[in-house]
Amino acid sequence: MEKKFGYAELWRFTKDVFTGIGCTAEHAALAATGLLRADLRGIDSHGIARLTGYVRLWEAGRANAKPELKLVHETPSTGVVDGDSGLGLVVAPFAMDLAIGRARNVGSGWIAVRNSNHFGIAAHHALKALEEDMIGIVMTNASALVAPTFSIERLLGTNPICVAIPSGKEYPFVADLATTTAANGKLEILQRKNQEAPSGWVQDKEGHISTNPHELKAGGALLPLGGDREHGSHKGYALGAIVDIFSGVLSGANYGPWVPPFPAYVPIPKNMPGKGIGHFFGAMRIDAFRESDAFKKDMDQWLKRFRQARPGKDFDRVLVPGDPERAMEKEREKNGIPLMHSVVLDLEFLAERFHIQLPG
Amino acid sequence: MEKKFGYAELWRFTKDVFTGIGCTAEHAALAATGLLRADLRGIDSHGIARLTGYVRLWEAGRANAKPELKLVHETPSTGVVDGDSGLGLVVAPFAMDLAIGRARNVGSGWIAVRNSNHFGIAAHHALKALEEDMIGIVMTNASALVAPTFSIERLLGTNPICVAIPSGKEYPFVADLATTTAANGKLEILQRKNQEAPSGWVQDKEGHISTNPHELKAGGALLPLGGDREHGSHKGYALGAIVDIFSGVLSGANYGPWVPPFPAYVPIPKNMPGKGIGHFFGAMRIDAFRESDAFKKDMDQWLKRFRQARPGKDFDRVLVPGDPERAMEKEREKNGIPLMHSVVLDLEFLAERFHIQLPG
Repeated sequence: MEKKFGYAELWRFTKDVFTGIGCTAEHAALAATGLLRADLRGIDSHGIARLTGYVRLWEAGRANAKPELKLVHETPSTGVVDGDSGLGLVVAPFAMDLAIGRARNVGSGWIAVRNSNHFGIAAHHALKALEEDMIGIVMTNASALVAPTFSIERLLGTNPICVAIPSGKEYPFVADLATTTAANGKLEILQRKNQEAPSGWVQDKEGHISTNPHELKAGGALLPLGGDREHGSHKGYALGAIVDIFSGVLSGANYGPWVPPFPAYVPIPKNMPGKGIGHFFGAMRIDAFRESDAFKKDMDQWLKRFRQARPGKDFDRVLVPGDPERAMEKEREKNGIPLMHSVVLDLEFLAERFHIQLPG
Repeated sequence: MEKKFGYAELWRFTKDVFTGIGCTAEHAALAATGLLRADLRGIDSHGIARLTGYVRLWEAGRANAKPELKLVHETPSTGVVDGDSGLGLVVAPFAMDLAIGRARNVGSGWIAVRNSNHFGIAAHHALKALEEDMIGIVMTNASALVAPTFSIERLLGTNPICVAIPSGKEYPFVADLATTTAANGKLEILQRKNQEAPSGWVQDKEGHISTNPHELKAGGALLPLGGDREHGSHKGYALGAIVDIFSGVLSGANYGPWVPPFPAYVPIPKNMPGKGIGHFFGAMRIDAFRESDAFKKDMDQWLKRFRQARPGKDFDRVLVPGDPERAMEKEREKNGIPLMHSVVLDLEFLAERFHIQLPG
């Protein structure tokens, strides 16, 4: 059961909810745009479906609607931002802008962030760099759901890496990937439908690969990209660890099993070594390496060559990272965003709670 | 059939071979140290076993023993190096030093390299940053053996990513990973032994997953980390692509299917858009983000927590990336480096060719 809503009405509603918890008009607009970018791009698990989650974090005193964002340490090309427990959707644009400013000045900029919360989809923040003729790089850690290779303990989040690269006439390259075999959202779909998971997605509490999507709730864990050692899971584990260290340790945020969870009903870990969750943002000016037109000519040739690659018999065509999300964004901007009934019920609850008009 | 050799005698021999092709004493020493680091760390496929390969590249006029290394473009935090067709083993330390120098000055340094050749193992170059209390990042592209998800064409190399991160008392984190499910070297071992490969390592020429390690020679391809779409191969493909673009497109080197091959008997691709193969080097000063001691305290806690993670029933203990290679390096520094008979025969050929004394 799904119903479609126009982007503009969902944006107005989302902004009003963020205003309702006390955000400034500017922050509420930023947060609404960031959150709904996920819905536009088809990453439904990270969009408006999480709006009640953000509100609950605020109600639990775990997210600050009026953060004072501060650059607490800096060099010409780097810096650390303290997000003052703000919404990641507000902290991330602040930090990405600082990275872009540094890239403008000295060629590249790198900002680690502590004391933040979930920031929606990484791609939204990385895409900002493209408007400046820069490469955008975004990472974030998240609460632990993933077991390192050989372990039965959950020590890492799904820790995504996003890299967006400018182009000339071709559509740009935008890779945004969790460092696990499968995103948690996909597993939740299988749980709801009571369907089996492909091998390599999860393990049970004893560390054996399982196809039961419910194992995650019974002491099991998500698996790093690769699945098991024979299929390269030590590489997925290493990538997730790099994201955790760049986002958490370099910034003074929490890391590993100490990253605080998004759901407000899950208790905060004991003895947290840092502040909030951590992100990492990078921007590199193209012409800090090569004349921009020369780069774009080559980048267009790269993109064309991969998009025109011969597909296998079972497939229509070869995609470049970001192609499906861009197509979805076009479609949903035009035709609206479908929301599941359970999400619509959440919005009804929020409309009542904050005395604002429902969309649609 | 293996025979063990002391590191010092292999180093002297390797240096003499590089001097034999015309390298300066300084370059020959650099190249020998870089090449043998692979043998010390147990990456036998990338070490002295490739020495004849480098000589053949030089004989074919595809590697320049007397390169004039030049920084051809720069900003305070970035730059591009033209390797003048030099050995990657010589070009890479030059570029990594430039990245480190920039990090010293403005917090971080990022150098893209064109017109280079194979540089041995990425970890050797990244580890240099640790001595300076910096994070080291190294990537390189390589000739195409890997098919993007859904494709039957080989368009990417095994394109490794290495990240080395300083620590306090604990051994540091050193991840060095090909962005494929399995390294080509592992497949070659199975080919020699006529054994089956695990599913997810290779596909046949029609794009179907195969367990026959010989498919690679029959028009098949290595698979990106993940194996197939259901197991996240689009993520491995994206990571390999990022390495290719940072190393090849950003520097003005070749990229995708146009990266020239290492074996001198394999013809160079037609219509190459750039120069040689490409690398990418990064260095970030720890105290450009946080006070170094505070970072190391947290990093030690991170490393300890992961090394002490509870293993699954079938495993002894949980490793941190770089642990196996460091243990191997200790062992081989002490007890010597085992070489296969075929490699020893290669060294005998080189000893005769350059009138130098054999090791052992």
